Amino acid sequence: MWKPDRSSSVALFQQIADEIERRIACGEFPPGSALPSERKLAEQAGVNRSTVMQAYAELRSAGIIESATGSGTRVSNFRLGPRENAPNWRNYLESGTFMPNLPTMRRIRSELRKDAPLIDFASGELSPDLFPRQAVQQLLRDTPFTPELGYDDPQGYSPLRQALVGLLKDKLNVNVTESSILITSGSQQSLYLIAQCLLSPGDAIAVEDPSYCYSLPMFRSAGLRVFRLPVDPERGVDPDNIEALHREHRLRMIFVNPGFQNPTGTVLQAERQLRLLQVAAQWGIPIVEDDPFSLTAFDGTPPRPLKSLDTNGQVLYIGSLSKIAASGFRIGWLAAPGSVISRLADARQQMDFGLSVIPQWTAAEFVRSGYLHSHLERLQTALFHKMHRLASALREHLPGLVSFRLPDGGLNLWCKLDPGIDPDKLLEEAVKRGVIYVPGTVFGSERGWIRLSYARPAAEQIEPGVRLLAEAVRSL
Amino acid sequence: MWKPDRSSSVALFQQIADEIERRIACGEFPPGSALPSERKLAEQAGVNRSTVMQAYAELRSAGIIESATGSGTRVSNFRLGPRENAPNWRNYLESGTFMPNLPTMRRIRSELRKDAPLIDFASGELSPDLFPRQAVQQLLRDTPFTPELGYDDPQGYSPLRQALVGLLKDKLNVNVTESSILITSGSQQSLYLIAQCLLSPGDAIAVEDPSYCYSLPMFRSAGLRVFRLPVDPERGVDPDNIEALHREHRLRMIFVNPGFQNPTGTVLQAERQLRLLQVAAQWGIPIVEDDPFSLTAFDGTPPRPLKSLDTNGQVLYIGSLSKIAASGFRIGWLAAPGSVISRLADARQQMDFGLSVIPQWTAAEFVRSGYLHSHLERLQTALFHKMHRLASALREHLPGLVSFRLPDGGLNLWCKLDPGIDPDKLLEEAVKRGVIYVPGTVFGSERGWIRLSYARPAAEQIEPGVRLLAEAVRSL
Repeated sequence: MWKPDRSSSVALFQQIADEIERRIACGEFPPGSALPSERKLAEQAGVNRSTVMQAYAELRSAGIIESATGSGTRVSNFRLGPRENAPNWRNYLESGTFMPNLPTMRRIRSELRKDAPLIDFASGELSPDLFPRQAVQQLLRDTPFTPELGYDDPQGYSPLRQALVGLLKDKLNVNVTESSILITSGSQQSLYLIAQCLLSPGDAIAVEDPSYCYSLPMFRSAGLRVFRLPVDPERGVDPDNIEALHREHRLRMIFVNPGFQNPTGTVLQAERQLRLLQVAAQWGIPIVEDDPFSLTAFDGTPPRPLKSLDTNGQVLYIGSLSKIAASGFRIGWLAAPGSVISRLADARQQMDFGLSVIPQWTAAEFVRSGYLHSHLERLQTALFHKMHRLASALREHLPGLVSFRLPDGGLNLWCKLDPGIDPDKLLEEAVKRGVIYVPGTVFGSERGWIRLSYARPAAEQIEPGVRLLAEAVRSL
Repeated sequence: MWKPDRSSSVALFQQIADEIERRIACGEFPPGSALPSERKLAEQAGVNRSTVMQAYAELRSAGIIESATGSGTRVSNFRLGPRENAPNWRNYLESGTFMPNLPTMRRIRSELRKDAPLIDFASGELSPDLFPRQAVQQLLRDTPFTPELGYDDPQGYSPLRQALVGLLKDKLNVNVTESSILITSGSQQSLYLIAQCLLSPGDAIAVEDPSYCYSLPMFRSAGLRVFRLPVDPERGVDPDNIEALHREHRLRMIFVNPGFQNPTGTVLQAERQLRLLQVAAQWGIPIVEDDPFSLTAFDGTPPRPLKSLDTNGQVLYIGSLSKIAASGFRIGWLAAPGSVISRLADARQQMDFGLSVIPQWTAAEFVRSGYLHSHLERLQTALFHKMHRLASALREHLPGLVSFRLPDGGLNLWCKLDPGIDPDKLLEEAVKRGVIYVPGTVFGSERGWIRLSYARPAAEQIEPGVRLLAEAVRSL
């Protein structure tokens, strides 16, 4: 992000005016387009709002920008000739079948991008010290890079698929073949491809409630009708609910996250697993099993995936390195019947021509060498301690005001707030004090819940973060 | 790809039967699903068809698979209980709003995946010896990997965007800011995002004829109405045609590839460039400028991009490393107004959460160090020689039967066949003889043209490839 140079002899307001003019000339702000508000620009540039006002006044007097009450500051059309028009970008931005992200999620992301660092219980990812960065550095330095640099196999780099066949078999008792695996850009792309290529607008699907899936505009963009399966905190979803939903709405697909479910941390009970497979088999409904967390199991014994029990190719199984190693790999995988994999691989070629072989090769080396194994042991222990640190801090600083169930793995603590606490106001007060989390409504859940991720903040930030949260609660 | 072990004491047919049984058990072929035809499986496994017939007979007698006249060989439903059903996968595969690739393109890809190597004039990419593989190996070994491994900035790795700002300015006189660049998975993803997020079903767009765009099911998937702008081989598209199309159909966007157009190799004439910008400005129509080839200019002087003349942020400019360095980077970029970039970056987060930082970091180091510069010099010379090698071979072996214009850059020679040659039959005969290319109809063009890429085959394969092509022509 650009900042003015405070050691320069050029006045701050002039530097800002010059920078805006440069950006206009570069087409970042075309004629007629909106400029950032004075408040926002002041925040980005790290200056007082009055400095920005002075910069805008300068540009206004030069005829470069113009302000109108109610519509903010815009770039003038001064450079356009009498028969020239800028495209009506606002109109284009409102086109398209792809819906924008939820406002709450965009708000949280924009808060996290600001310069002032927040204690981050919101991002569902590992803290930088838990990424295997040293291992990756070492690997890149010491292992000669051997692959070709051309377009890759549409299903992904073959040695990576082989390494994953081994990983799934050894650690999760999931038996798949190399040719029934598609490498994707994290779990997210697997879900996107399924929604785009196997379902049609109007199709009914069932998802857990609460669920990460509700925060995904992709389901709304695909025009799906989404029905809810309440998650029992101890046992997960009730397969009988699926049967009832199917009789009424004719379900086309079931999306579940049975291992340390996001956000609840629940593991689907063994009996319910079997019954779920049975119900799905009875009606011939495919199950999408999203399984990003099972290898985080604190005791090193992951819950059994549905896929390990699947005898008729009914489960589309999704995994990824994002939550167990690093999201920056952007490596996920989908194991599914060969015909499904071919169809999705073909569509993906049209969207982005597949993943770079560089991270795929890195991931293959990481998985098949001992790196992943020793990394997982360290990760499981660290997450266990961070989870307990968060739980203790909540008990100490918010006694009786939040309740939760301790998970056996995953990255999140799902917390019920005392009914006296207004969750919307709480988020505002928390952000003001320097701490952030995701409100439960983002997961499609009833109000009064919040998700605190213990994975993302540094271990020593957890207690201070909860203190700030407690202050926010008291301020209400 | 799995192959039977010929040194084993287990009979070949038995090995194949065991492998198919394993794949069925792993869910690659769920109950009821189609197995590969005997011919295809024999080809894949490198055995006689009779061996596959014996393997299938074995599995049939065990009740594992069943064959019915007309519907091929399928996995039995034997493992399903009385109240169990496999999902009707065929029905799912026909759902989805995303259309499959053109049959001709799928055919070409499948021919290229076979074991028998073809001389490849079809793939529009560089040959492995032209990839900067050694530079990448050296870079990975010698440059310490410094980035975090978390989710990246939605617009892409900031040092890469900075490096690209410098590259575009120095080499192409294109002035953009870091915040108006989005890093994408090659050009392909930029095009996909534009089609998905800025256009709506029913919108009219204009594309060059012939054009790479016609081979993109993404435009059909997005429900766009596509209108043609004939490409004059010497001067490119005629801007007056755009005006006429706009008056009739109200164009929402114009897609062009003005620098060494794919497939024709044409450079849009300077006057037509200005007139194109003028027409687009008059009606406020955005232009998408796809510019993957300009830095391949044989004489080191790239044609001037439209974007370098764009004064009102009207041109959405797309570039990539795929054709000038290596497709395996999967690094492309879009330069556009800030508001457009934000919208597309937000949508992309929902689809795949962005690119891995590993290839982005590699690309940043590659561009900002001297690697790219010296690579480009080598590449331009090599392409120049390969192009002339192809042209000479065509003149020698097919005198009077193909005509073409020598391009000044790019990867392709666009060839008109003698009207006596049937292009569909020619492709069959060429493949039989071990050489492949892309028929012109894939580019939406009139029949009688073919695209020969001189970039992909090794230099010493070009002449033998043309010999085989000449044999195919003579066989007709």
